[in-house]
Amino acid sequence: MNGGYETDTVTRLETNLDDCPPELLGAVFQQLLDAGALDVWFTPIQMKKQRPAVMLSVLCADDKVGPLADILFAGTTAFGLRTDKVVRLKLARRTETVRTEFGDIDVKIGLKGERIVQIAPEYESCRRAAERTGVPLKLIFEQAVQALRAGQKLSS
Amino acid sequence: MNGGYETDTVTRLETNLDDCPPELLGAVFQQLLDAGALDVWFTPIQMKKQRPAVMLSVLCADDKVGPLADILFAGTTAFGLRTDKVVRLKLARRTETVRTEFGDIDVKIGLKGERIVQIAPEYESCRRAAERTGVPLKLIFEQAVQALRAGQKLSS
Amino acid sequence: MNGGYETDTVTRLETNLDDCPPELLGAVFQQLLDAGALDVWFTPIQMKKQRPAVMLSVLCADDKVGPLADILFAGTTAFGLRTDKVVRLKLARRTETVRTEFGDIDVKIGLKGERIVQIAPEYESCRRAAERTGVPLKLIFEQAVQALRAGQKLSS
Amino acid sequence: MNGGYETDTVTRLETNLDDCPPELLGAVFQQLLDAGALDVWFTPIQMKKQRPAVMLSVLCADDKVGPLADILFAGTTAFGLRTDKVVRLKLARRTETVRTEFGDIDVKIGLKGERIVQIAPEYESCRRAAERTGVPLKLIFEQAVQALRAGQKLSS
Amino acid sequence: MNGGYETDTVTRLETNLDDCPPELLGAVFQQLLDAGALDVWFTPIQMKKQRPAVMLSVLCADDKVGPLADILFAGTTAFGLRTDKVVRLKLARRTETVRTEFGDIDVKIGLKGERIVQIAPEYESCRRAAERTGVPLKLIFEQAVQALRAGQKLSS
Amino acid sequence: MNGGYETDTVTRLETNLDDCPPELLGAVFQQLLDAGALDVWFTPIQMKKQRPAVMLSVLCADDKVGPLADILFAGTTAFGLRTDKVVRLKLARRTETVRTEFGDIDVKIGLKGERIVQIAPEYESCRRAAERTGVPLKLIFEQAVQALRAGQKLSS
Repeated sequence: MNGGYETDTVTRLETNLDDCPPELLGAVFQQLLDAGALDVWFTPIQMKKQRPAVMLSVLCADDKVGPLADILFAGTTAFGLRTDKVVRLKLARRTETVRTEFGDIDVKIGLKGERIVQIAPEYESCRRAAERTGVPLKLIFEQAVQALRAGQKLSS
Repeated sequence: MNGGYETDTVTRLETNLDDCPPELLGAVFQQLLDAGALDVWFTPIQMKKQRPAVMLSVLCADDKVGPLADILFAGTTAFGLRTDKVVRLKLARRTETVRTEFGDIDVKIGLKGERIVQIAPEYESCRRAAERTGVPLKLIFEQAVQALRAGQKLSS
Repeated sequence: MNGGYETDTVTRLETNLDDCPPELLGAVFQQLLDAGALDVWFTPIQMKKQRPAVMLSVLCADDKVGPLADILFAGTTAFGLRTDKVVRLKLARRTETVRTEFGDIDVKIGLKGERIVQIAPEYESCRRAAERTGVPLKLIFEQAVQALRAGQKLSS
Repeated sequence: MNGGYETDTVTRLETNLDDCPPELLGAVFQQLLDAGALDVWFTPIQMKKQRPAVMLSVLCADDKVGPLADILFAGTTAFGLRTDKVVRLKLARRTETVRTEFGDIDVKIGLKGERIVQIAPEYESCRRAAERTGVPLKLIFEQAVQALRAGQKLSS
Repeated sequence: MNGGYETDTVTRLETNLDDCPPELLGAVFQQLLDAGALDVWFTPIQMKKQRPAVMLSVLCADDKVGPLADILFAGTTAFGLRTDKVVRLKLARRTETVRTEFGDIDVKIGLKGERIVQIAPEYESCRRAAERTGVPLKLIFEQAVQALRAGQKLSS
Repeated sequence: MNGGYETDTVTRLETNLDDCPPELLGAVFQQLLDAGALDVWFTPIQMKKQRPAVMLSVLCADDKVGPLADILFAGTTAFGLRTDKVVRLKLARRTETVRTEFGDIDVKIGLKGERIVQIAPEYESCRRAAERTGVPLKLIFEQAVQALRAGQKLSS
């Protein structure tokens, strides 16, 4: 059922917020990541009484539910959270560093077995190179992918 | 340039809100309509500092700008509004009342010249019939359209 | 795993609607709440064949699934619904009434153990005070919070 | 608990994409449907680092998880997917063909027991009639519903 | 005021739709493009009476306003449209064809004066190569960009 | 026509992006603000070929159009931008510093003539106090408003 992918199980937290100023939500977002959330995101929703509201979602390891719930209640106006479990299918990952004319860049590689399925230059690594050199970020990404391809035998 | 349609010119008001609780926005929505706004709507937007925010838009006659701006500033957290003008192309409208097994229903008809382009049973009229009879609203709409078609020579 | 919070288990209903006029969705929203749904919300989604569609979500006690499904099928164009279970983490709640210059206002208080985590003036109570007095709703909320704080020893 | 409706259990796949160009997402959408997905949809979400991102959701039979995950990883920039199970409540379906002045149209009928709950002219059937005749699609839908109603005793 | 870019002036059409089934909107989208619209898009909005609605926007040459308005009124439930003018700032464009191991691909190039600012493999050209070869679309895009870079002196 | 409010005229830039990875958009957002944009925001839109896309909007002084367009073209995949003018209605602003138990906080005050219409504790000022003290941000905001009210005669 997992199609040959690695799996793990994590918890999803969700809460619908129809009385919380967005500037508080912006602040709690980073706090959740800093406290170990695997992912955090907002979805625009429409709630009762004509309210343009927000769903806050968090993905986390099961033992983070308590601490992240504490942050959510302190940082927002929520009186409750929903939780459920999801099973993740994941590519195996490794990181390589490639040499480009704009400096060294880390590139994440996603594999299914031995096969390379995904190549993703690491954002912060690219951003630093863009700031250092003044070259547009999109060109840094391009060069990093090219450098990796040049040094790799890729199945596609 | 107007393609043979009726036109008028109205003002559009917009403001981006990244610090306003949605429950205030729900309340101001109806106040704006009650004070004569032609249309009011919310659009989900993403603003600075990771904020899931809302754009509030209002369409109104030019002489309503002042009073509606007063309501917007009183009812939200806005410090400013954007305004510009839009020209509307409009179908001519008339309303007819049709007889259905669920009672009489008003139907809005939209015309370009003599030609019927749009038929729209009036929502409140249908809603009242649905409440009165317990029949699903979607059937009331269907019947009203059918009753109108039965009594009309329609070009399509 | 529940971080010291109260929990319960409820059902989530969801359906994707790509052929339903929004005015029907507006009508079914209130019917679902009136029939005992714990929460109802819309999410904008993009479906096949270039359709800007809507996901309708409902949260309810398990024994409400049947009656609410009946309302959903009667009030929308759905041929199917998705259901799953979610565990809620909840603050304990109590309501206090505070005296303000604009009249008495109910305030919901959310607690973790003895500790006050959330203070939320009750919307309808504030709205009535705003209508009675002509004072902007945002000031009523502010005063209600202040009145509660004045009478309470708050840990933060 | 199923309110008298037919049920089955299917898998939901989801992934949050904050580094994938929308034109790739448009392409993978159809590939997923072609490979047997029951439904596919996009939800606009807001992810970390100020990114206006997209959640891709897929509903499928359990034995399609592997093949559809392969398509998702090949067609997008995802390194992982979330999966969980949902139970569907469904109307029984049958299709009837009705005669209209614009040609024959297939109409899907949704039933709870013997009772007709839903009537939905089949989109592709209507679209072809609209193209063949130049009549607006909305009129074709209207006529198809009317033709079906004329030939049916409908409980509502 | 135009920052050294080419400019032209076009018309924007917009209409808010709170009673139109999404499947009609999907159909009218392509009709508008086929009739010469420069761009068409949907924005999720929230309208009165709790309706999760859609704004349809069209960009077009001024002399297309009439014909496109006719299509909009015939294909949707609109009774009116808003129009205003926008000035576009544009890169100069040219298209080059590059040779890749997956076949020839057209690449759009965007210039400010002599300087290349944008490189975009043409989507349909890439899609056909992907279908012909079974190679993921994202690799085709990558190769096309690389092929162009290899043959070009690029300022960045 | 301006309802007694201060006004100015600024330019709005917009571009629809259906081939730009969200991580580039996150990066360009801050660059636009740093280069003097008055406001920047994203709106989720649905574009042709089933693409879940993004509209990038910028508000700026007229003499910033050139430099900000340069940043937009360099940082995204855009080949063109739309521009138009909007007139802003604005409250007069002043900032006061209030003393709270969590330190001094700046509060923005919005006035129409002599009348206070808006009170907004300055976000960065509150955020720093929250970090310094460990007190939830929402309580800092509350205290700042209260401190200002205590020292002011407010018309409402």
